[in-house]
Amino acid sequence: MTNRQRLGIHTMTLKSWSLQETCAALAAAEVPAITLWRQAIEPVGVDLARQLVEDAGLRVTSLCRGGFFPAATEQGRQDAIDENRRVIDEAAAVGAPAVVLVCGAVPGQSLQTSRAQIQDGIAAVLPHAKACGVNLSIEPLHPIYAADRSAVNTMAQARRMCEQLNGENETQVGIAADVYHIWFDDALEQEILLSGKAGWLHAFHICDWKVEQSDPLQDRGLMGEGVIDIRQIYQWMSAAGYTGDIEVEIFSSHHWAKDPNLFLQEILTAYDECL
Amino acid sequence: MTNRQRLGIHTMTLKSWSLQETCAALAAAEVPAITLWRQAIEPVGVDLARQLVEDAGLRVTSLCRGGFFPAATEQGRQDAIDENRRVIDEAAAVGAPAVVLVCGAVPGQSLQTSRAQIQDGIAAVLPHAKACGVNLSIEPLHPIYAADRSAVNTMAQARRMCEQLNGENETQVGIAADVYHIWFDDALEQEILLSGKAGWLHAFHICDWKVEQSDPLQDRGLMGEGVIDIRQIYQWMSAAGYTGDIEVEIFSSHHWAKDPNLFLQEILTAYDECL
Repeated sequence: MTNRQRLGIHTMTLKSWSLQETCAALAAAEVPAITLWRQAIEPVGVDLARQLVEDAGLRVTSLCRGGFFPAATEQGRQDAIDENRRVIDEAAAVGAPAVVLVCGAVPGQSLQTSRAQIQDGIAAVLPHAKACGVNLSIEPLHPIYAADRSAVNTMAQARRMCEQLNGENETQVGIAADVYHIWFDDALEQEILLSGKAGWLHAFHICDWKVEQSDPLQDRGLMGEGVIDIRQIYQWMSAAGYTGDIEVEIFSSHHWAKDPNLFLQEILTAYDECL
Repeated sequence: MTNRQRLGIHTMTLKSWSLQETCAALAAAEVPAITLWRQAIEPVGVDLARQLVEDAGLRVTSLCRGGFFPAATEQGRQDAIDENRRVIDEAAAVGAPAVVLVCGAVPGQSLQTSRAQIQDGIAAVLPHAKACGVNLSIEPLHPIYAADRSAVNTMAQARRMCEQLNGENETQVGIAADVYHIWFDDALEQEILLSGKAGWLHAFHICDWKVEQSDPLQDRGLMGEGVIDIRQIYQWMSAAGYTGDIEVEIFSSHHWAKDPNLFLQEILTAYDECL
């Protein structure tokens, strides 16, 4: 059995549970870490959320999610910046060391423009993130999401943004590397190494890419159900110096339809087998 | 109205028509070029297919498609090579100057291995292609197809294969650039230019990327229905020296369900507007 000391699970992965239920179940299963989605916090508020997580003895890896910086209007972009400052406040309040950024895109707006707006948006909130002691983790998204969810689609793009946004030897802005979004990239090993050397590998998300997908958003595979060589990517992350949590993030209407107790057991088994 | 002297349409775009019907309709609409899919040739045979195209006064841009070189067994890879030699023969017989290669991938086999098998496969059939005077056009496919349809997912990967496979100043192996597969690539302008300078831009396929897609294969958009800046990519192709046909290749159960006469008219209008 693989050591589970680094295992984290996203609240969204077990979305049919309330935060109370998820915390209790993870504690009972000796899962040490939790990734909090704002949707799971909202019903209870940040204070109770923090209490629940602490009482369960869980480590918070990050808050999902901020981002969505691009907008067609200046007002829209300012609204996004304001919202991201609130997300950073929420992360600090709930004890999350980082905010994961799904960076955003605007259908019909050029990706170059969206990428510039993303970089400007992160720069605008970065001082607040520093003041709050919260890291910002850019998550490159698979190119299938380039039209409307993220104009940042490769590890290389995320790394270049880190270069632009961080001061020398700074690691406040980093990368959340999710195997689903990056597995096909022929520069992946090199990019992981470059970002790791700079200290920018903030997070590592795992799931799987099913060959047949019924839905582009909600048919991600449990580790082992698809084609991704997770162990290989894990080894590249390790070689690049990443020692943080390994987070299971799965959006799946198929898995969500079953008893979450059963799904959690399947996750534990799949986690042990994939690493 | 844009000059239609470079317009080509794939038989698959008008798939409910027989080859006879497609040739007659394209001639009547003064569409000068046709891209032949093997499925359209099969019912009539290569000799009659060639005759139909010639009688309609159509220019054949290429034959779709060869490829699918990777396989788990040596026998499987040899079968693919044999099949590609037959595809090359068919292209020569029907008067197609090139075969478009959808390169293939094997679920569960590493992309590195598949890419090596693709390069070996093309190398194996290249002498026959040269002897037949048929070009081989690698079509990079969007990363959504990396698991099972093509391990070649970027213009850069295709260009590097051209570098490896062509002798000095040779252009027998080139690239079929389809906007659907490459639009998000932040290296696109540069890659088009590099391949164009080498003479490797064999083909240019257009359609559109719809933000909401009901199916990963058969819900491609008519030009203008999605987010791709086709004019921008066309300008990059032109700046790179591409003067060949502009081929409309659309897989769409939605558009296929309508009267193909109507769809052809919509294609003509959309073509004029997008360039």
